[in-house]
Amino acid sequence: MVGDGEISLRPARREDVPAIVAMLADDHLGRGRERIEDPLPESYYVAFDAMAAASPIQMMVAETRSGRVVGCLQLAVLPGLSSQGASRGVIEDVRVAADCRSRGIGELLVRWALAEARQQGCRLVELFTHNSRVDAQRFYGRLGFAPSHVGMTIRFD
Amino acid sequence: MVGDGEISLRPARREDVPAIVAMLADDHLGRGRERIEDPLPESYYVAFDAMAAASPIQMMVAETRSGRVVGCLQLAVLPGLSSQGASRGVIEDVRVAADCRSRGIGELLVRWALAEARQQGCRLVELFTHNSRVDAQRFYGRLGFAPSHVGMTIRFD
Repeated sequence: MVGDGEISLRPARREDVPAIVAMLADDHLGRGRERIEDPLPESYYVAFDAMAAASPIQMMVAETRSGRVVGCLQLAVLPGLSSQGASRGVIEDVRVAADCRSRGIGELLVRWALAEARQQGCRLVELFTHNSRVDAQRFYGRLGFAPSHVGMTIRFD
Repeated sequence: MVGDGEISLRPARREDVPAIVAMLADDHLGRGRERIEDPLPESYYVAFDAMAAASPIQMMVAETRSGRVVGCLQLAVLPGLSSQGASRGVIEDVRVAADCRSRGIGELLVRWALAEARQQGCRLVELFTHNSRVDAQRFYGRLGFAPSHVGMTIRFD
């Protein structure tokens, strides 16, 4: 699917928000966190506009030739002092539509993020995968990521 | 030290960069990554200016009453679509001067970051600790962080 040029990547547009949120919700962790309604809660659009306005953040989608959005990835490039003032890339919200997995779409998105981060001067790219996402850890391992850190979180109620 | 009002927090200024970099370098992982020279490599100042310009990032320092910088923390507040468009707080580069540890300075910095993140609408705060920083993991655990994720990284050469 990826190999034959069927999938292309482009920056996410405001009208992609429902397709992205549907992918975020279609997941054992996401199910309880998202609200799929028609129309979607306004909070999603407020967040999209904030992302678009926050210069270090890019949200990309993967689109089929027929225009269906089948994947997404958020990349933040954060300047910082450590490692001699190198920027860090932080990848979040990687999702591929359930019926389009195992076709290289996630890899296409992540490889785009790695190339983009490197081009923007990052020396390091980081991402969190939930302890329960063993398949995701194997996937990122294949792409060269090492499980070097403990990802610690606090969730506010 | 913290309890008696000896330490206060304030946003980092450009002239704090040498004190911050000294703390980053004084560490088994940081030693090989930083370059302590006089003057410091320009890359650190380029990064500081980029952080100051990037609106979602705040770099805080802890300062003694006599004006010595003894701690630092970087907080990025990243808008995102997941969790109904909630922002995420990402904490990086938490350091306390070696001779000032175990006095509550790190806790003061992290508690500031949690309050700030919550106030800016974050539902989640994340940080990476290297697998080898067992003491740090215990410290963050005491502050309410859970080791819920695997932190995966790629470092470019």
